[in-house]
Amino acid sequence: MSFAQVEAAFGSYSSSDPAYSAQLVVYIAGQRVIDLAVGALEPDSLLPVYSSSKGATAVVIALLVERGQLEIEERVARYWPEFAQRGKSSVTVGQMLSHQAGLPGVDGGFGWEDLLDHDALATRLAAQRPFWRPGAGAMYHGLTLGTLADELVRRVDGRPVKDVLREDIAAPRDLDVWLGTPESEDSRVVPALPPTQDELAAAPAPVPDPLATLWAPRGAFIEVFSHINDPVFRRVGQPAAGMLASAQGLAGLYACLRHEANGLPRLLSEDTIGQMSQIQVAGNELGSNLPIRFSVIFQAPTPPRWPFGGVGAFGHDGAGGSLAFCDPIPDIAFGYTVQRMPLPGGMDARALELARLVRHCLRGTR
Amino acid sequence: MSFAQVEAAFGSYSSSDPAYSAQLVVYIAGQRVIDLAVGALEPDSLLPVYSSSKGATAVVIALLVERGQLEIEERVARYWPEFAQRGKSSVTVGQMLSHQAGLPGVDGGFGWEDLLDHDALATRLAAQRPFWRPGAGAMYHGLTLGTLADELVRRVDGRPVKDVLREDIAAPRDLDVWLGTPESEDSRVVPALPPTQDELAAAPAPVPDPLATLWAPRGAFIEVFSHINDPVFRRVGQPAAGMLASAQGLAGLYACLRHEANGLPRLLSEDTIGQMSQIQVAGNELGSNLPIRFSVIFQAPTPPRWPFGGVGAFGHDGAGGSLAFCDPIPDIAFGYTVQRMPLPGGMDARALELARLVRHCLRGTR
Amino acid sequence: MSFAQVEAAFGSYSSSDPAYSAQLVVYIAGQRVIDLAVGALEPDSLLPVYSSSKGATAVVIALLVERGQLEIEERVARYWPEFAQRGKSSVTVGQMLSHQAGLPGVDGGFGWEDLLDHDALATRLAAQRPFWRPGAGAMYHGLTLGTLADELVRRVDGRPVKDVLREDIAAPRDLDVWLGTPESEDSRVVPALPPTQDELAAAPAPVPDPLATLWAPRGAFIEVFSHINDPVFRRVGQPAAGMLASAQGLAGLYACLRHEANGLPRLLSEDTIGQMSQIQVAGNELGSNLPIRFSVIFQAPTPPRWPFGGVGAFGHDGAGGSLAFCDPIPDIAFGYTVQRMPLPGGMDARALELARLVRHCLRGTR
Repeated sequence: MSFAQVEAAFGSYSSSDPAYSAQLVVYIAGQRVIDLAVGALEPDSLLPVYSSSKGATAVVIALLVERGQLEIEERVARYWPEFAQRGKSSVTVGQMLSHQAGLPGVDGGFGWEDLLDHDALATRLAAQRPFWRPGAGAMYHGLTLGTLADELVRRVDGRPVKDVLREDIAAPRDLDVWLGTPESEDSRVVPALPPTQDELAAAPAPVPDPLATLWAPRGAFIEVFSHINDPVFRRVGQPAAGMLASAQGLAGLYACLRHEANGLPRLLSEDTIGQMSQIQVAGNELGSNLPIRFSVIFQAPTPPRWPFGGVGAFGHDGAGGSLAFCDPIPDIAFGYTVQRMPLPGGMDARALELARLVRHCLRGTR
Repeated sequence: MSFAQVEAAFGSYSSSDPAYSAQLVVYIAGQRVIDLAVGALEPDSLLPVYSSSKGATAVVIALLVERGQLEIEERVARYWPEFAQRGKSSVTVGQMLSHQAGLPGVDGGFGWEDLLDHDALATRLAAQRPFWRPGAGAMYHGLTLGTLADELVRRVDGRPVKDVLREDIAAPRDLDVWLGTPESEDSRVVPALPPTQDELAAAPAPVPDPLATLWAPRGAFIEVFSHINDPVFRRVGQPAAGMLASAQGLAGLYACLRHEANGLPRLLSEDTIGQMSQIQVAGNELGSNLPIRFSVIFQAPTPPRWPFGGVGAFGHDGAGGSLAFCDPIPDIAFGYTVQRMPLPGGMDARALELARLVRHCLRGTR
Repeated sequence: MSFAQVEAAFGSYSSSDPAYSAQLVVYIAGQRVIDLAVGALEPDSLLPVYSSSKGATAVVIALLVERGQLEIEERVARYWPEFAQRGKSSVTVGQMLSHQAGLPGVDGGFGWEDLLDHDALATRLAAQRPFWRPGAGAMYHGLTLGTLADELVRRVDGRPVKDVLREDIAAPRDLDVWLGTPESEDSRVVPALPPTQDELAAAPAPVPDPLATLWAPRGAFIEVFSHINDPVFRRVGQPAAGMLASAQGLAGLYACLRHEANGLPRLLSEDTIGQMSQIQVAGNELGSNLPIRFSVIFQAPTPPRWPFGGVGAFGHDGAGGSLAFCDPIPDIAFGYTVQRMPLPGGMDARALELARLVRHCLRGTR
């Protein structure tokens, strides 16, 4: 197999934009076949990956499913009784973890500081009336999804998402993904960068939909960058957006789901992967009216915005441009990070092109 | 607080269109801060407000919820056993009152005369097979919603919607809203006017969708105006479209939900308001394919057609151009009427601009 | 009644395209009033009608409902226990037969050869995890719908769809529709033709959505024509796409549902027709994002693609251009075939225009 076309494309992004700083790692059938880094990023640099954190959180959920601790079709309130308040008693784990529960925010809103206090926000979410009847639609729970998943994991396992990720998944496999990044790793951290002022000035205004305001924390857009790079936030390990990772870590995380890693057997059975990657909700998102497809936390391939893979693929992007996924049929695990946020945010168009080229190269050689 | 910008805009509509006849009343935190009328409408003129009637019907439903007489998640057939016919046994109150029950019309159609005989139409609706499986979608039940809500209220309370509205809500608070308007008020009534011939000639043809024909009564469009202004129809108090009101009445009705009025305590608790304003259905409407969001009878803010408020706002427009709503977070109650129907019908674009300016003025002074 | 306008239109298609080969038969109130054929097609020519086969399969389902053997709201697994595997235990007959069950294909895909072995494919479908959570959306199950319906009919009745169609419906009424066409009819068969090379070259590329690849059998588009015309496929009687019929057969099939035929009473009660034609799912299709409305197998009128009738109409088109339906209110049964596939496939625009003219002529004379 030759991935020269992928390497050439990655190189061309760098040639055409001297400030381009990115990492790309690809596994095929459990073997690392591409490992590139350019610009300010070394192969072992760590970057805040925003919502690509959700992919790691989904892997933790999958592990609990694999172990029989958690059932996707079960009601959340069975595990978290307080969640039943205000009409949520019949909401299932699958609904809650696919952005259907109507809890993108809380009455009165929330700020970045609220993300530092898990218990308080979880208590508010348990008491919150859904902003829409659960199941009536779906809208991205950009930050609260992390709190909801975290409380569910704590109730089921006794440990928070970050500890299950580290102790049971990442540390034994030496995976460079960090929820609750310790000081020991700080020297490898490269800050995420906002779009340039010119890009921001040229960007279209967001949809003026009141629902779309719910999931964002209070504060101006640009504040995101002070928080996402803030060591205080970094230490907390918020499971929706608080992860730091390299592309090696991201791709390795998806590769180990179906392949031996560091001498350990694959993490998940095909049955668990099938459950986790089944599309739970599809349609136009409330608030943005754009097409979405979510399985259990994971994004499913969804043209035209998220065409990252084939049937059965699952993964997650980050607002800052990162993309990581597993595509079982050609057996790809893919990790990509980029330092400067591309607009409109979410998976970098260059990452999608690189993923397309990986598939193209595979077809040519098989 | 100054609402000079609102008053200036209202004045400018009048300057640019000498025939403009409208009323605008706004409450902030329970206090009336704007009260304007222009053209053929005095502040105490009564106008048929078409589907803004549904807002008053929703308030009656809310009162029954507040009193514990009715539950939104309950099956309709518990209260109205005949409704269970032909596959409707599991339809909930919330589904029926958010245009999801598949009953926008009846086999064989109906005419204006059928709206004068509540019992006969309610019996036909109870026996009707839904035109779509309940829950498979939503399409505005422009007139039958009134009959459905009325029969539900009669079964639960013993009185029709119009009597509960008058006896328990409007009369004690001296609110100028009338379902079943008595002769005593006729001297204040101003007729609703159709669009001009020029406007009608320029309007695009409606969507040629067979479903979209179901909810309209038999007869040509222009007949609506003979019926909506007909004293016979006015006396009946059809809860979907038969109300007469002033803007004072409309705004006062929404203000009293959360504030003392005429010495009486607020009508509803925040919990009841939360239940009534929770979005029950969202998506593209069957028949029109336009975005809709309904809570329990009420419209929820829905760009781009219905951007009347923020998260948690609830209200209803009328085909003739009226708009009335409550927006709890900035604590606005808003009532607007206009004599001549704007095209394409529904909330007048000027009403939306006035609502926007009210919010703008509030932000400026707080 | 005069249908001169319909006949004139049909003639004009032939004048403007000398290769136009088509059949048109219309019944009004159970009486055949139009019977036309042109080009390579005689009135009794048989043509493969692709998914218009599904309409005949739906009639078989309807007959089982009429006889009390099958209930639309029942769970599939009650009749077909193996279907309960992998999260499908609560899928209803109505969901499965309206393309909501998430089974447009099977893991590993399938080829035309798999359609020749019903039992093996039915077993794979029973064991398949749905590609989306049943109810989360709908996407056309172009071929598997036939296998699913067939297995259901076999479990309920003991006979396959083709035998119930022939023995209980078509033979007694002398209807020229054939699932599992015997050699005795081969002399009347005219092959379906693909679009011309020029038309194919000018056609837009299909939507690049991974889900949309699921329902098609392996192999290039043009292979469809070798298979659809293959006597081996013709003998099997695949209930989704394997029927051969004349327009006489198609229109006669829909006419006999509500009218006496060959001395036999109407096949179905209005109650059964009401159940079968109730819209089960409406919205934008997964994969294509185009509007769809399905009742139980049947298409319901859906602008802008499928505007073939009024409220309560039901029928099915075929990829090759055929269209057949019943529209109860004006009491029309309509059958149309065409030899050369029009692009983009599905009901020929000329068939829709002919259906429109039939309604127009009826309005003029009643």
